[in-house]
Amino acid sequence: MQRVDGREDGQVRPLKITPAVCKHAPGSALIELGDTQVRCTVSIESGVPNFLKYASPPQGWLTAEYGMLPTATANRLRRERGFVTGRTQEIQRLIGRSLRGVVDLSKLPDKTMIVDCDVIQADGGTRTAAITGAYVAMKLAVHKQLVKGRITQDPISSNVAAISIGIKDDRLLADLNYQEDSDIDLDMNVVMIPDGGILEVQGTAEKATFNNEQLSQVVALASDCLKRDVFVAQDQAVQLALSH
Amino acid sequence: MQRVDGREDGQVRPLKITPAVCKHAPGSALIELGDTQVRCTVSIESGVPNFLKYASPPQGWLTAEYGMLPTATANRLRRERGFVTGRTQEIQRLIGRSLRGVVDLSKLPDKTMIVDCDVIQADGGTRTAAITGAYVAMKLAVHKQLVKGRITQDPISSNVAAISIGIKDDRLLADLNYQEDSDIDLDMNVVMIPDGGILEVQGTAEKATFNNEQLSQVVALASDCLKRDVFVAQDQAVQLALSH
Amino acid sequence: MQRVDGREDGQVRPLKITPAVCKHAPGSALIELGDTQVRCTVSIESGVPNFLKYASPPQGWLTAEYGMLPTATANRLRRERGFVTGRTQEIQRLIGRSLRGVVDLSKLPDKTMIVDCDVIQADGGTRTAAITGAYVAMKLAVHKQLVKGRITQDPISSNVAAISIGIKDDRLLADLNYQEDSDIDLDMNVVMIPDGGILEVQGTAEKATFNNEQLSQVVALASDCLKRDVFVAQDQAVQLALSH
Amino acid sequence: MQRVDGREDGQVRPLKITPAVCKHAPGSALIELGDTQVRCTVSIESGVPNFLKYASPPQGWLTAEYGMLPTATANRLRRERGFVTGRTQEIQRLIGRSLRGVVDLSKLPDKTMIVDCDVIQADGGTRTAAITGAYVAMKLAVHKQLVKGRITQDPISSNVAAISIGIKDDRLLADLNYQEDSDIDLDMNVVMIPDGGILEVQGTAEKATFNNEQLSQVVALASDCLKRDVFVAQDQAVQLALSH
Amino acid sequence: MQRVDGREDGQVRPLKITPAVCKHAPGSALIELGDTQVRCTVSIESGVPNFLKYASPPQGWLTAEYGMLPTATANRLRRERGFVTGRTQEIQRLIGRSLRGVVDLSKLPDKTMIVDCDVIQADGGTRTAAITGAYVAMKLAVHKQLVKGRITQDPISSNVAAISIGIKDDRLLADLNYQEDSDIDLDMNVVMIPDGGILEVQGTAEKATFNNEQLSQVVALASDCLKRDVFVAQDQAVQLALSH
Amino acid sequence: MQRVDGREDGQVRPLKITPAVCKHAPGSALIELGDTQVRCTVSIESGVPNFLKYASPPQGWLTAEYGMLPTATANRLRRERGFVTGRTQEIQRLIGRSLRGVVDLSKLPDKTMIVDCDVIQADGGTRTAAITGAYVAMKLAVHKQLVKGRITQDPISSNVAAISIGIKDDRLLADLNYQEDSDIDLDMNVVMIPDGGILEVQGTAEKATFNNEQLSQVVALASDCLKRDVFVAQDQAVQLALSH
Repeated sequence: MQRVDGREDGQVRPLKITPAVCKHAPGSALIELGDTQVRCTVSIESGVPNFLKYASPPQGWLTAEYGMLPTATANRLRRERGFVTGRTQEIQRLIGRSLRGVVDLSKLPDKTMIVDCDVIQADGGTRTAAITGAYVAMKLAVHKQLVKGRITQDPISSNVAAISIGIKDDRLLADLNYQEDSDIDLDMNVVMIPDGGILEVQGTAEKATFNNEQLSQVVALASDCLKRDVFVAQDQAVQLALSH
Repeated sequence: MQRVDGREDGQVRPLKITPAVCKHAPGSALIELGDTQVRCTVSIESGVPNFLKYASPPQGWLTAEYGMLPTATANRLRRERGFVTGRTQEIQRLIGRSLRGVVDLSKLPDKTMIVDCDVIQADGGTRTAAITGAYVAMKLAVHKQLVKGRITQDPISSNVAAISIGIKDDRLLADLNYQEDSDIDLDMNVVMIPDGGILEVQGTAEKATFNNEQLSQVVALASDCLKRDVFVAQDQAVQLALSH
Repeated sequence: MQRVDGREDGQVRPLKITPAVCKHAPGSALIELGDTQVRCTVSIESGVPNFLKYASPPQGWLTAEYGMLPTATANRLRRERGFVTGRTQEIQRLIGRSLRGVVDLSKLPDKTMIVDCDVIQADGGTRTAAITGAYVAMKLAVHKQLVKGRITQDPISSNVAAISIGIKDDRLLADLNYQEDSDIDLDMNVVMIPDGGILEVQGTAEKATFNNEQLSQVVALASDCLKRDVFVAQDQAVQLALSH
Repeated sequence: MQRVDGREDGQVRPLKITPAVCKHAPGSALIELGDTQVRCTVSIESGVPNFLKYASPPQGWLTAEYGMLPTATANRLRRERGFVTGRTQEIQRLIGRSLRGVVDLSKLPDKTMIVDCDVIQADGGTRTAAITGAYVAMKLAVHKQLVKGRITQDPISSNVAAISIGIKDDRLLADLNYQEDSDIDLDMNVVMIPDGGILEVQGTAEKATFNNEQLSQVVALASDCLKRDVFVAQDQAVQLALSH
Repeated sequence: MQRVDGREDGQVRPLKITPAVCKHAPGSALIELGDTQVRCTVSIESGVPNFLKYASPPQGWLTAEYGMLPTATANRLRRERGFVTGRTQEIQRLIGRSLRGVVDLSKLPDKTMIVDCDVIQADGGTRTAAITGAYVAMKLAVHKQLVKGRITQDPISSNVAAISIGIKDDRLLADLNYQEDSDIDLDMNVVMIPDGGILEVQGTAEKATFNNEQLSQVVALASDCLKRDVFVAQDQAVQLALSH
Repeated sequence: MQRVDGREDGQVRPLKITPAVCKHAPGSALIELGDTQVRCTVSIESGVPNFLKYASPPQGWLTAEYGMLPTATANRLRRERGFVTGRTQEIQRLIGRSLRGVVDLSKLPDKTMIVDCDVIQADGGTRTAAITGAYVAMKLAVHKQLVKGRITQDPISSNVAAISIGIKDDRLLADLNYQEDSDIDLDMNVVMIPDGGILEVQGTAEKATFNNEQLSQVVALASDCLKRDVFVAQDQAVQLALSH
């Protein structure tokens, strides 16, 4: 049985990462994953938050913000002015944690990287697309710092990317779109690096419970998808930008 | 003497309006004016604000929101969460007023058009670009309502567009970019319709004062620029979208 | 045809400016324009906002706040606690910009003038009355600074005042009251100095559009009214206070 | 030994209550107590808060708001936008409670009286002046309701007024001004009706403690002052307004 | 006639103070007064608020916060996120003022005591219980500072405690529970020290007014109750904690 | 090698669940897990959020709030007034989702269960303790609804409980306390039901990455601990409360 958009169960949606889409930020990328579009930029400011001010040796920091344009979704969203939803906060924290997982902050002394992930259009998987695209923006921003001599060592230890995997009637489905996501049994987001190491796993039973074996299968599929399609696309986008 | 980007004094920057850029909103357009990029969408919701609930005959409403992505500007902006700046509020009100100037709200009974103008990249003139682009998005949204029979008469009486004009050392400069805008003597925004009628004029002396004659010259140049370049681009964008 | 309150079309309402109405602020004035009453005070604090801290040569700053007592209007207003309306922000920005237009901030090094305009009673024209009254309060506050030797040069280059002009059925009406303002075709606020120089013009078509010629007529009438009635009243109020 | 402003220990400052100072609100009064000036207005709106909506028999409500103009005090106050201080909330609650103490809310069915007390100038005793002036505004607003037949019985059972009394070095001082209030041993506010009945007493030891006998003396002096000077002034202000 | 819970008119509810209930704060106590339960803790931080930063001689500060768990009351309370009610602010200010009344802040230089009073269960008298319990927590926190040599003199001059007294149909009732408090004629809170000195008295007529003689009786009963039951319980709790 | 508190690697801290600790809420429990103490209550209100108002068949809802007393932690926390941290929001959402996983909301038509989890003292594992304790409170609240005939079927399908598991230097550690949690390699929270079904898994690599096999081991240990110690303690607490 085919999926609603004709994909195989284990197939990722068409993925396109356009680097350097922003005139002002030192690193940026527009990631398109099916109809999901996220604009990721990385700014670098001097200074660190208070809790790191007196760190020895000096540390840097990386923080992430996530937003959605009001008409990114089928029903217009209220702008988050005067409030920030729990969902937004949860996603911001996930993006920040995931990227910090591949960054050695001691190689970025007294600097803060600010990652902005703005969803232009949403069709499921915005948080995983944001992580995948933000890696590219971060890589380009760091490259500029190295070239300008503002930092001396590359703080990024490896690629990092994410994907959502679902289970529906015992079928394992990769990279859920919005329609699939709305009617899934188990919804899991997995953040990984190319050697298969896991940085974060978040799984929620939406209908029935799931078991340990299913959990393993989900993670294995996530690893396959990321290795086959996603890390490669990241590297190509970075190369494209650097070759200009 | 040429301008910083090589333009003639009375010349508008390259203008491109891409219609129908949003999967979800019924009307949308991306307007690019030099390096300024604004994504305009129009959503239509049922219901009207309280002050119109008991209007007789029944009325519709149109309201506008304006936002900037944090990295739209050279120095990263703080997200407007928990506050809205006076500048944002002023621009939102201007956009809403300008568009309502060409809409007969009695032909849109019990509906509210929500105009979202999100600045993706800023290089001067974002508020005038927003008005110009929002007209296209509104035209397309209204067209869909007519086709679906949700409204019976077109409430839009004409095009509406806007432009900024400056005076610098007695030279009249059309469509200021950010660098020019930062060092201008007089900064004026003019909102007009194709027959030359003015809907709004806002002029501020940034250095010396100006006089009544200069005011007339500024408005005349605004009219020339809009007639020569802008209304045409709006109509082409609308045609392009409707021909698909 | 006479106006609702019996005035000629080009006539300003009875204008009274009482200086030095506040025990605590160094400069103050109560302006009464028909039934509109605005209490304007100017406080002077040491220090400047962050963006001017390292200016060279050192600069001063002037900022304005505008408020309305809840029962200043016919329908009681909600106090602006926990929010500030777009209208309030727009007016505050206009007042500040207008006054800064006649102040040389380099002659006020490391000081901030805070202009408070509080509407005690509203009957149209509160923003223009606020500008006109605030000039008097500012003049008195600056005079005290000069007398006490805290500044050495008068930073104020000239009077500044404002007036609203409307067009209704092709009649040009000066200084609209609330009832007239609610049913006008074109509503314009003009801020000027005594030599006829314009600092700010803001015009909005409330019903039909207007044209360049009408714009010129409006500005000419504004200039006449201000020269005939308003600058004089300002000077008398200042003289009255200084003669005590 | 005389007080700083030459008064006797038991003497109230010059008191002037000007009724009907507001064009829009149905009841209003400006109270001047020495240099303290408070503008009190009473608006009447239909409807009651949720907790009274289903009261049987139907009830009315009275609520009070208190504010200070930024330059009412010697050091300019920050406007309470985005926050309300504990002090403001405490005073608002005291004013509301005190006035409700003389109002039979069942004679005001489905109406809410909104009392606004705005301090134009502060020199100590603003909360007691607010209560005293608000009574006059309320009396006038209720009178209009009776005349217009919107209510059928007068809900106000008696005058209500308030005064501050202090103890300093064993001297009992009536009606403290700001300077006295800043250096007092015991500070007490007493709210009473003309027959000597107490509605509210709030006393705070600022330096040492006080005892039961001192408490009695303070209340006795409050009663003397209110009976001699304050209730009379209220009645005269009401008469003055009604005689027009 | 007996009271609803079988008590004599002048009788306090069963009172239990458990000291040292908190692992982290240096001073703490859980006070149970009938069904009312308040957890009081005192933290000590270095530094003082801005208005004391340059005090000479150096001063310390004490501030109090008061909160209620949502299910402390019969009808679940909304959490005070995004707002703080006037009632909460009033109580916080009362607790802080009362405790500062027995503390010599010059003996606590450059330190701030933060008193947290969290109502676990409410059945009337939470503010008076909070003051009584907070004294014990403060005493223990100060003791630790003395033992560790962080301060050299005990800043606390005496016990401080509080009680509510009501008048209902001419009966004087001590320590009102929630049901009694809801139907009382006069409600008074009295804060005292063991020698009978009064720090604060706040009395409100809920139905009729009261007179000076009743006020004296109320204060006398408050003094009796505190001396007989409350100061003793405080001392025992402190002893219990120090003997471990 | 023993753990800091002498436990075996796979051993849960001493667990005590005291049911019915709250006079007002229909269901409540105090859970103590080592030094962590969380007070869980469940209130039942009529009505449902807007998005369920027109559900067919009618649905109920369950929502959770989580808070910490300021002195629950070693360094005093600021009260969440005027803001809610991302951490709090994330935990609230997790608690709500986990409990809804065992509740059939169609058996609770037009009612909302509000779960309040207030951390009295924190020493690691507060979110898992909150879920475990909230189950007991919810079970008791539902029991009362059944007894009173307000609902006709028990909506709860099974127990639900949670535990944290960490990996440190390849050792699997159950139920981390605060000190352990601060220095862990992998931190995972697992929410399960008694038959071993998983409702939620959230794992974060704090230092290195982890692999699929480690993930399986963690889940297996979580299942062992919950089955051996936690579900039993829940059932005993429920029985204890129901037997009174």
